[in-house]
Amino acid sequence: MTETLIILGIDPGLANTGWGVIEQRGAKKRALAYGCITTKAGVHIIERLEHIYDEMLAIIDRYKPAELGIEAIFFGSNAKSALTTGQASGAVLIAAAKSRLKVGEYSPTQIKQVMVGQGRAEKQQVQYMVKAMLGLDHDPTPDHSSDALAVALCHAKLRGLC
Amino acid sequence: MTETLIILGIDPGLANTGWGVIEQRGAKKRALAYGCITTKAGVHIIERLEHIYDEMLAIIDRYKPAELGIEAIFFGSNAKSALTTGQASGAVLIAAAKSRLKVGEYSPTQIKQVMVGQGRAEKQQVQYMVKAMLGLDHDPTPDHSSDALAVALCHAKLRGLC
Repeated sequence: MTETLIILGIDPGLANTGWGVIEQRGAKKRALAYGCITTKAGVHIIERLEHIYDEMLAIIDRYKPAELGIEAIFFGSNAKSALTTGQASGAVLIAAAKSRLKVGEYSPTQIKQVMVGQGRAEKQQVQYMVKAMLGLDHDPTPDHSSDALAVALCHAKLRGLC
Repeated sequence: MTETLIILGIDPGLANTGWGVIEQRGAKKRALAYGCITTKAGVHIIERLEHIYDEMLAIIDRYKPAELGIEAIFFGSNAKSALTTGQASGAVLIAAAKSRLKVGEYSPTQIKQVMVGQGRAEKQQVQYMVKAMLGLDHDPTPDHSSDALAVALCHAKLRGLC
């Protein structure tokens, strides 16, 4: 019998946390759902983080992923965006921990390498490969959800290796 | 009857999250407890964040604070430390949100201003004032717990104002 694995991919951010759920059955992969958790700039940080955390729990409860891939934050970004992305990824990872998901973290370079074959690929090339690998006839929107599906696909490929 | 308010102060960090609980009764303040939540560098980020979150819930359950003051991260720090401090503060703030605490964030400059009367005070001056204001006959150790008590005292002073 072919094992089925459900993977949740996350592109974390305080304003926009992209998410994408894929199902892997043998070599076949398909998208089950994707979207973006958004929070508004004027809202108190504690409400923004709680919203991300609660939405994460709802997504996990609905799609029952066994594993989660998350994009690791790029240290070259400025300290303020590293901070807010860190807070958002903290909320995501606590939700993953409380749901007992296996977690893998992947750098932007690793994700591009897996998706396109080279670490300096353009964003559009990654988006093209997300569509091709999942057999989608349209671009997943917003971009954050496409990025999240790329992380899920990267996790599917590397989960046994790192 | 004099109102009693219990405040939890937090100096967040991935390796060391200092905490301090104070009780304010009228103008009188005293330290109820303080300490530091530590996590080791070699441990997976998800376990480190879950440990901070679980310890936070345990501290809140034990001392039943109504409000929480947290040191806001200094953007001048480097992106890597902003990221990990952001993740730790994310874990702290989710615990605060789930426990329905009122939360105030204070910059290092605000804390020094409240404690010593000027925003460029030395760390030792802040520590001295923590001891004086709480009537402690010894230095709270580690430093992180003294810093956390300073945040709690800053919150006690500014909670009505910002």
